[in-house]
Amino acid sequence: MDSKNPSSHTEEKRNTSIQGMTVVLFGATGDLAKRKLYPALYNLYVDNKMPEAFSVVGLGRTPYTDDVFLAKVEQSLRTYSRGNVQEEGLQRFLSAFRYCTFDATELKSYEKLKGLIEQRERELNLPENRLFYLSVAPGLIDVITSNLNTSGVSQSSGWKRLIVEKPFGSDLASARELNEKLRTAFHEDEIYRIDHYLGKPMVQNLETLILVNPVLDSLFNHKLIANVQITASETVGVETRAAYYDKAGAIRDMVQNHMLQLVMMTALHLPKKAQPEEIRTQKVNIMEALRPIQEENLQTDLIRGQYGKGDLFGIDVPAYREEPGVPLSSMNDTYIAARLFIDNEFWKGIPFYIRTGKRLDKKSTRIVFEFKERPTHLEDYHPEGLAPNLLILEISPNESISLQVNMKDPSTNRFQPSTITFTTNTSNQPEAYELLLHDAMLGNATFFANWKEVELSWQWIQPLLEAFEANRLPLVTYPAGSTGPKEAKQLLANDHVNWW
Amino acid sequence: MDSKNPSSHTEEKRNTSIQGMTVVLFGATGDLAKRKLYPALYNLYVDNKMPEAFSVVGLGRTPYTDDVFLAKVEQSLRTYSRGNVQEEGLQRFLSAFRYCTFDATELKSYEKLKGLIEQRERELNLPENRLFYLSVAPGLIDVITSNLNTSGVSQSSGWKRLIVEKPFGSDLASARELNEKLRTAFHEDEIYRIDHYLGKPMVQNLETLILVNPVLDSLFNHKLIANVQITASETVGVETRAAYYDKAGAIRDMVQNHMLQLVMMTALHLPKKAQPEEIRTQKVNIMEALRPIQEENLQTDLIRGQYGKGDLFGIDVPAYREEPGVPLSSMNDTYIAARLFIDNEFWKGIPFYIRTGKRLDKKSTRIVFEFKERPTHLEDYHPEGLAPNLLILEISPNESISLQVNMKDPSTNRFQPSTITFTTNTSNQPEAYELLLHDAMLGNATFFANWKEVELSWQWIQPLLEAFEANRLPLVTYPAGSTGPKEAKQLLANDHVNWW
Repeated sequence: MDSKNPSSHTEEKRNTSIQGMTVVLFGATGDLAKRKLYPALYNLYVDNKMPEAFSVVGLGRTPYTDDVFLAKVEQSLRTYSRGNVQEEGLQRFLSAFRYCTFDATELKSYEKLKGLIEQRERELNLPENRLFYLSVAPGLIDVITSNLNTSGVSQSSGWKRLIVEKPFGSDLASARELNEKLRTAFHEDEIYRIDHYLGKPMVQNLETLILVNPVLDSLFNHKLIANVQITASETVGVETRAAYYDKAGAIRDMVQNHMLQLVMMTALHLPKKAQPEEIRTQKVNIMEALRPIQEENLQTDLIRGQYGKGDLFGIDVPAYREEPGVPLSSMNDTYIAARLFIDNEFWKGIPFYIRTGKRLDKKSTRIVFEFKERPTHLEDYHPEGLAPNLLILEISPNESISLQVNMKDPSTNRFQPSTITFTTNTSNQPEAYELLLHDAMLGNATFFANWKEVELSWQWIQPLLEAFEANRLPLVTYPAGSTGPKEAKQLLANDHVNWW
Repeated sequence: MDSKNPSSHTEEKRNTSIQGMTVVLFGATGDLAKRKLYPALYNLYVDNKMPEAFSVVGLGRTPYTDDVFLAKVEQSLRTYSRGNVQEEGLQRFLSAFRYCTFDATELKSYEKLKGLIEQRERELNLPENRLFYLSVAPGLIDVITSNLNTSGVSQSSGWKRLIVEKPFGSDLASARELNEKLRTAFHEDEIYRIDHYLGKPMVQNLETLILVNPVLDSLFNHKLIANVQITASETVGVETRAAYYDKAGAIRDMVQNHMLQLVMMTALHLPKKAQPEEIRTQKVNIMEALRPIQEENLQTDLIRGQYGKGDLFGIDVPAYREEPGVPLSSMNDTYIAARLFIDNEFWKGIPFYIRTGKRLDKKSTRIVFEFKERPTHLEDYHPEGLAPNLLILEISPNESISLQVNMKDPSTNRFQPSTITFTTNTSNQPEAYELLLHDAMLGNATFFANWKEVELSWQWIQPLLEAFEANRLPLVTYPAGSTGPKEAKQLLANDHVNWW
C-alpha cells in the first residue's frame, strides 16, 4: 500500500504514481454515495492519494443539473467527511464531477454516458482507465454490466475495473449465475467484490501486526488458543430495509459475506509478508477446510433467532414482525450464532464461535481469542477469581487490541481479570471505503472477495438456507436490546465456554 | 500466604491462625521504625493480620517514658501510614507497646529487657514467641545476638526469630564472620535477612502471575527473549549517609543484595506453584550459574560511575565529592551497570543488563524483557518505526505490567511502538515491610535472603570489590540528573541494544 505523502496537501506533492482515471458511479444519488463514497474520494484527494487528474461521472434516474449535483456532493462532504472540509482545493476537487441522468435498462443512456466520459477524458487529458462502481439494486447488476459491454463503454484503450456491492446473489445458484454474467464483460481480476469489513484497518493490519510483534506472534499458537469468537452485533433493527432484509436474513446479509470473511482473515496463518495471491490462496484453503454443518448437527451447532419486542437504551422497541414492511408471520432470521470448525492442522479442535444480530444491546464488531488454562500441573492450584486470558481485537466502532490477564489485588490478595488496551490514534483514520477505493484504483484486490471465496461461502451456506426454508431449525426469539437468545448462550455452555 | 479476612476490621474476625508473640524492636527511635515498621504493624493490625494478642517492646538509647514513646508511635502512624488512622481500635493497638531504655553493649540492659518481656507475656497471656527485629548499626548486630543468647532473652519455651537489616557484612569474609556469630544464637531457619525489594508485591507475585496467565507464561520462552534489563534508579544523592555510603558504594548498597536478588527472582523458572524450599533451591542454582566477571572482562562488562554536579528537576545539585562528609578524593561508586550471563539451559546466551545509581533523572525500579525480532523471513520486510516488543514490570514507585508492541497508525500508515499497561489497584496496597513482617510472624522465609544466596552473592561480588579497591576499573563521571554515564550506554550499544 502506498505510504508516501501521508498527509500534507499541496499541488506539488500530488500523487503521480496512480494513473489518471474516470470513476463511473452508478447510484450517484443513493445513500451509500452520499454517506461513504463522496467523503472517501474527498479524503483520498486531501491525502494526496487521488491521481493528478481524474473524472467522476455520477449516474442516477433523477434528473439533476451538474450544479445541483455538485452542490449535493459538497453537502455530503460537509456532513459526512471524517476530516474537516478544507476550502483550499475544494473547488478543484468538485470540478472533477459531472452528472448524467441515466436509465440502466436503456442502451441510449449508455451511449450518452460514453460520450460524456470521452469528452471529459479529452478535456482532462486522461488515459481511458475506467472504474465502474455499482451501488445499485442487486437486480440491476447484470443488466448494467451487459450494457456496459454492448455499448462499448467498458471497451477502451485503458484498464477497466468493476466494483460491486453486496449482495452478490441470494444463494449458490444465483451467485453463480450473476458471476457468469459479469464474466461476459469483465475478467475475474477486473471484478472487485467489495466487503467493507475487509476495509477495516484492524482487519487489514492483522497480518502485519502479528508479523512485526513477536509477542503477538507467539500467542498465535494452536497449543495456546482454546477458541476464537467473532461477534458482529448491531443495535439497529431492520429500519426501512424490510423488502430486502426479510428475504435475506442475517444468514445472507451478514454470515455468508462479512462473518465468513472475518473467519477467513482470522484463520489465515502467514509465514511472512504475503503477496495478494498468497492471501487469496489461503482464504480459499480455509473455506475449503471449513467443516459443513451437517443436518444432524443443525440443532447443536447453529442458532437462528428473531428479535421480539424489548427495551433498547430505555426505549420500547417493536418486535421484528411488527416492523414496517415485515409480514406478521415472518420466519426471517435477524440473529445467527454458530459453532464452526476449520479442519486444518493449525485449527484442528479449536472451535470458532460466530454470532451476529440486529437489535442487540450494543454495536460492536470484534474477534476474541480465548487462551487455554495452563495445563495439568495447575490441578492443585486453583486460586479464586481467575478468568481466561483473552486477546480482543475490536474492529468497530472503535479500533483497539486488548489483552485480559489475571492480576492480583494486593489489598485483598485475590486474583481478578484486568484488561489492558492498545489503542491507536483513531481520531482521524481512513474509513473502510477510502482504503478499498484506493486499493481498487491501484489495482490491488487483496482486500476484496474473489469469486472462489464467494462461491465456497455460498456453497457452505446453501444447506443452511434450505434448512431455514424448510423450517428444520427452530426460530428462537430474543428480546430487542438483549445480548441475544438464551439458546446462543447454551450453545457455548455445552462446551463450557462463555461468549466474550 | 494468608488471604482470610482481607480487610474488614472487627474484633470477631481477628486473625486467630497467627500465634501470639512479642516483637522486640532494636532501633525503636530510628528512622526505619518511624517511617516503615510502626505503620507496617498498624496496617497489619487494621487488616486483621496481627495475632489476637501481641506485645511490642521498643528499645533505644534515648530515655523515654512509655507515654512519650506511644505518642511517637502514634505520630508515626498519622504521618506515614498508607491508610488513614482509624480512631476505633487505635488505643488497643497502642496499648501493646512498651519502651525500654537500652544499651546494646551492656548485659544489664538485656536483663531489664527480659523482665519486661516476661511481665508483658504474663499480663497478656502470651506464648513465649519472640521476634527480634534488628534495625541497628551493622557493628551492633553480633553484639546484640550474642547478648540475647547469653542473657537468656532468646531462650524461651516458644519460637524465636531474628530479622536483620542490610548490610549483611561488607565483603565475603565479614559476611561469613557475621553469619557464624549469628549462628551461635540462632539457627539458619530462625534468621530472616530482610531485603525490602523482595517485599514488593510485584516481585512476590511474579511467579503466580505467570502461573495463572498462559499469555505471560508463553512469553517466558528463551526462544523469544533477547535480553533482560533490571534498573533501580534513584534521584536522591548520598544525603546524610556519607559515613556508611562512602565505604559501601552502590556495589555493596545495591548490587550485592537488591540487584542480585532481583536477578534471581527474575531468572527463576518454576514449573508450578512452588514451595519455599524450591524457590530457595532455584535461587541458589541461579547464583551458582551466574558467570563471574573475569578480570579480562571487567572493562567490557562493568561500568563504575560517580555523579558529578548537575541539574535535577531544574535545581543545581553538587557532585558526590562535594556532598557533606564525602572526601574530595573519594573513588566511591554511586553507579554500577553490568552485563551478566546465567549459564544454565534456559538463559544461555540471553544477557541480563543491570544498572543502579543515585542522582539519576528518575526514581524507578523495573524489570524489562526485550523480545527478539521475528527471525529470518523478515529480511525482506523492514517497515519504518518498529521497536522491539517489551514486557515491562514496574516494581516501584508504581506497580504495573506493560507491554510494548508495534501498532500501525492508519493516518500515516506507519508503525509506531505503543505501550499498554495493566495496573492493579495500587492506591492502598500493603508495603514491602508489611508483607515481610507478616511473613516473618508466620514463619514463612520465602521472601527473605537465605545464607547460601547471601554467601554466593558476596562470592560473586568479591573480585569486583578487589578490582575497585585496586582501581583496576576506571571510575567514570556522570552528571547528576542524567540517565547515567555514557559508558553505560556504550556497554549495551556494543551488543546493539538500548536501555529501556
